[in-house]
Amino acid sequence: MSLELLILGSNSAAFAHRRHHTAQLFKLQDQHFLIDCGEGTQLLMKRHKVRLSRIDHIFISHLHGDHYFGLIGLLSTMHLFGRKKELILVGPPGLSEIIQLQLRHSETSLNFQIRFTEFTPNESEVVYDHPKYTVTTLPMDHRVPCSGYLFREKPKKRRINRNKLPEVELSHLDIARLKDGEDILNKDGSVKYENRLLTKDPNPSFSYAFFSDTRLRPQLLETIKGVDLLYHEATFANDMKDRAEQTYHTTAEQAAQFAKDAGVGKLILGHFSARYKELDPIIDEARAVFEHTELAIEGTKFVVDGK
Amino acid sequence: MSLELLILGSNSAAFAHRRHHTAQLFKLQDQHFLIDCGEGTQLLMKRHKVRLSRIDHIFISHLHGDHYFGLIGLLSTMHLFGRKKELILVGPPGLSEIIQLQLRHSETSLNFQIRFTEFTPNESEVVYDHPKYTVTTLPMDHRVPCSGYLFREKPKKRRINRNKLPEVELSHLDIARLKDGEDILNKDGSVKYENRLLTKDPNPSFSYAFFSDTRLRPQLLETIKGVDLLYHEATFANDMKDRAEQTYHTTAEQAAQFAKDAGVGKLILGHFSARYKELDPIIDEARAVFEHTELAIEGTKFVVDGK
Repeated sequence: MSLELLILGSNSAAFAHRRHHTAQLFKLQDQHFLIDCGEGTQLLMKRHKVRLSRIDHIFISHLHGDHYFGLIGLLSTMHLFGRKKELILVGPPGLSEIIQLQLRHSETSLNFQIRFTEFTPNESEVVYDHPKYTVTTLPMDHRVPCSGYLFREKPKKRRINRNKLPEVELSHLDIARLKDGEDILNKDGSVKYENRLLTKDPNPSFSYAFFSDTRLRPQLLETIKGVDLLYHEATFANDMKDRAEQTYHTTAEQAAQFAKDAGVGKLILGHFSARYKELDPIIDEARAVFEHTELAIEGTKFVVDGK
Repeated sequence: MSLELLILGSNSAAFAHRRHHTAQLFKLQDQHFLIDCGEGTQLLMKRHKVRLSRIDHIFISHLHGDHYFGLIGLLSTMHLFGRKKELILVGPPGLSEIIQLQLRHSETSLNFQIRFTEFTPNESEVVYDHPKYTVTTLPMDHRVPCSGYLFREKPKKRRINRNKLPEVELSHLDIARLKDGEDILNKDGSVKYENRLLTKDPNPSFSYAFFSDTRLRPQLLETIKGVDLLYHEATFANDMKDRAEQTYHTTAEQAAQFAKDAGVGKLILGHFSARYKELDPIIDEARAVFEHTELAIEGTKFVVDGK
């Protein structure tokens, strides 16, 4: 099992330097999640050979256009291509109203159901609970209601040590108990096989935190501690710190310090201001603080597989 | 003076074969009109080096996404780039509500005024009256309220024949009278100079008719008779005539016959179905009926300059 993140778009407000608006394809447990959906996302998916039919979940962070203007077009194309499968959509208040209004005026009744979850601004809540993972909102500090998302696999079961199997006699029930971490007992209650001798530690549980447009959020440090991947906006370099503060954004140095303090595996910076044709100032100042930093360059795939 | 039409996008419902959704830049009398605005139009304008600031008029035909999903992004970028100039927007009922809702949720108050004219569906009306030209709606026959547009220059003034000027004596008032087609009179009312001897015919008045998504509209034949350029949708070739009828579209052959009957200067076909990777079936059957037919290939500029 692994975690994969494909960057589709990474620029802030204006299209510039061949960089598009925010959109990411995140893969976990064979599920594909689209996170944010700027204008032209369906074109970028085509370019990067991502099939629309793979997407069953879309998460939108907020209602600034560079994060969602491509959504209605994407939904329309899904409809046109005959999609029947339910789609899970999570986003801020107002998103559903905007979609419904546009569908109504085009007299379109979608072939598929949208199950819409409206997140509660300024609160952290589980917006999607799957048997194997959860998605939790991360309240951002931005000019409009805005949320990041934390994708976290639930703890996995212990793995049977197959080398030991020839030496022991186990029923199916015993195997299930071992995976749950229990010892195998004799009828009198004494220990027949110790769990630790027949099992190995579970595979790691992966996690990804997506920080959309925001000022620095030190109050979320504990929540995301130790995630494998952290995407954080870094609209500006640190010489524009005041501008970042005024516009409710973060600098690369601030994001790097945050990632370091949170002990994340890797930091990915994105949402670059159009003022940066070259992104050296962003990456250089971030790596000076936290070495394991990368840029959200379009078309780049980040993989965490625990190996 | 000339008329110019730059094709930005020309495909119907789905993006396909590197073809984008409908958008055209039409230039008349040094004014630039954007006609329809599918998703990604601002990217296409960038690709074809069209500056956003040139656009002062936008005409939207109807509220199917492939004709307007790029509008809100375009307006947002104009705002971001500091536009102050008023923008004239003409479109169907509902368009203004959609824009306002999206601006409200992004808490955006545009730096510039949008002067919105809502056209009346199923009626032909002048929606823009400029001293030198008019824009009239052309009611289409489609599944939702939909209108084409007829851009027509008003008759121009007669031109002074400069070769004759040394032979005569004219005041500024005389020149104005000659341009208006009047003779120059003596005080006793007798003709001093005959108009036809001192002037030449006016420059031609150009006209362009844009036929958005529609079934064939024979009732508009008289209205557009003799236009220099006719853009007409041709979603299908004629072997798909029934499908065209069902979906409220036109075939290439039908459009060509219409253009021939209307005696237009040139026919441009667009809004191609994604089923046509190659457009030979479309152009071949149209040219068999009306020779002066071209395809709306993206990036092509059509110029009519009367020479």
